[in-house]
Amino acid sequence: MPRGRGASARPLLSNHQKSWLWGTLCVEETLRAGQWPIYELILGSEANQPIHQQIAQHAERLEIPIERQPARRLEQLSKARDHQGVLALMGPFPYTKFDDFAHTLTPDSRIVVLDRLQDPFNFGAIVRSAAAFGMSGIVIGSENQVQVNSHVARSSVGLVNRVPIVRVDSLTESLQKLQQCDCHFIAARQDGEFALGELFGKTDFAAHPLGMILGSEAHGVSSELDQLCNASVRIDMAAGVESLNAAVTAGILMYSLSSLTTQRSEF
Amino acid sequence: MPRGRGASARPLLSNHQKSWLWGTLCVEETLRAGQWPIYELILGSEANQPIHQQIAQHAERLEIPIERQPARRLEQLSKARDHQGVLALMGPFPYTKFDDFAHTLTPDSRIVVLDRLQDPFNFGAIVRSAAAFGMSGIVIGSENQVQVNSHVARSSVGLVNRVPIVRVDSLTESLQKLQQCDCHFIAARQDGEFALGELFGKTDFAAHPLGMILGSEAHGVSSELDQLCNASVRIDMAAGVESLNAAVTAGILMYSLSSLTTQRSEF
Repeated sequence: MPRGRGASARPLLSNHQKSWLWGTLCVEETLRAGQWPIYELILGSEANQPIHQQIAQHAERLEIPIERQPARRLEQLSKARDHQGVLALMGPFPYTKFDDFAHTLTPDSRIVVLDRLQDPFNFGAIVRSAAAFGMSGIVIGSENQVQVNSHVARSSVGLVNRVPIVRVDSLTESLQKLQQCDCHFIAARQDGEFALGELFGKTDFAAHPLGMILGSEAHGVSSELDQLCNASVRIDMAAGVESLNAAVTAGILMYSLSSLTTQRSEF
Repeated sequence: MPRGRGASARPLLSNHQKSWLWGTLCVEETLRAGQWPIYELILGSEANQPIHQQIAQHAERLEIPIERQPARRLEQLSKARDHQGVLALMGPFPYTKFDDFAHTLTPDSRIVVLDRLQDPFNFGAIVRSAAAFGMSGIVIGSENQVQVNSHVARSSVGLVNRVPIVRVDSLTESLQKLQQCDCHFIAARQDGEFALGELFGKTDFAAHPLGMILGSEAHGVSSELDQLCNASVRIDMAAGVESLNAAVTAGILMYSLSSLTTQRSEF
């Protein structure tokens, strides 16, 4: 059941504290998942397509208050033009608790660890890839890291509702605890010891939960986390090009990992 | 030699027509490449790090006028905070001419065709990946397609200067001409006939220049272009996830293509 729904669960918020989510796909996916509380729904006065009716019915069933407002008011509140006639006032994002997550790990688990990622669009695109390639979860720190917000949710096309996102105070301590659960870690680094094509041929990684650590756009993986890793991996590139966009790097790593897993299960 | 440099080549522009490029890495890469004309350089009053001095010297050698302005003026002009004390007033982007590009094709050529891509950050990230994975060039249409602008250049970390970008009036006609140069085409589609892992094992593609067509974020590859393709390719994903971010899709395709080429050359 969705948590904190309905007017009674809604705290008093000043305008700048309000967090809005918009767009038909994104809001519908969030309603369907029923995890991230929606305090209120605003529909454009003329938003009457089947998807809007579906969203309104869904919200009514969950007892979420619904208002109608002119489209320009939706644009004003969301500061976005691509609201598609739907705006949702969001409660706090329901991060998965670390201990709950750690208990679910199996040798097949595949985790993405983000070390101080800054760009919400990169974060969202990584969540989208993680859902597409069946990752078990994403672990982020609570400081110096973009948190799940409207832009992340939009960029993930609502898939922040689909992949467990675990927020921890200390990545170092949390990764040490995951190591005690038999988890292995690989750092993505420009000068990684293995080229990506070589790495996943190594059988060591097949029998353990595996975490891939991706660093910040500007600074890469911190040396503290790097020291916890069993190996580091690089994506080979043309001379004179140092790195890829962070979401592209993450996508290539997750794709490689998932296609290897598929191949293995076929034998 | 850079084209159109110096005050004499600079047209009269009203404020909203001006195109600015900013950031030390991006402007330095553009100066070094010497292709995209810079009409004027503005340095922050207190921008005196070695990279700023290097940029100033480079611009002086190319007879580009240099001004000093307070940091807040740079922020005002670029509408960005990450200008890092360097702003360049840009001339028109030097797209590669189609005929020049077509003449350079060999069986090893690998081309990316973008069919009505809308997001400048996706475009920039694709250019960056294309440079990283040694693509021969990127072909875009002149309509309904984001053109090379400051955001694309920034998101490519200046690599728009490194990969030939060919702009054509009709993608359909241009691709037909490339087919006459023996080029094969593959469309990236959610329901592509081959999974990515299967496709590049097919030897047909090894002996021809190869173009990968990526569709717009919302609509995919047009049926008109799809009909010109020799095959279509899909990236397999978990149930319920329909697609990846366009730059991530492009990155995975280019990575797979480039790692296959590397493997082949090792045998």
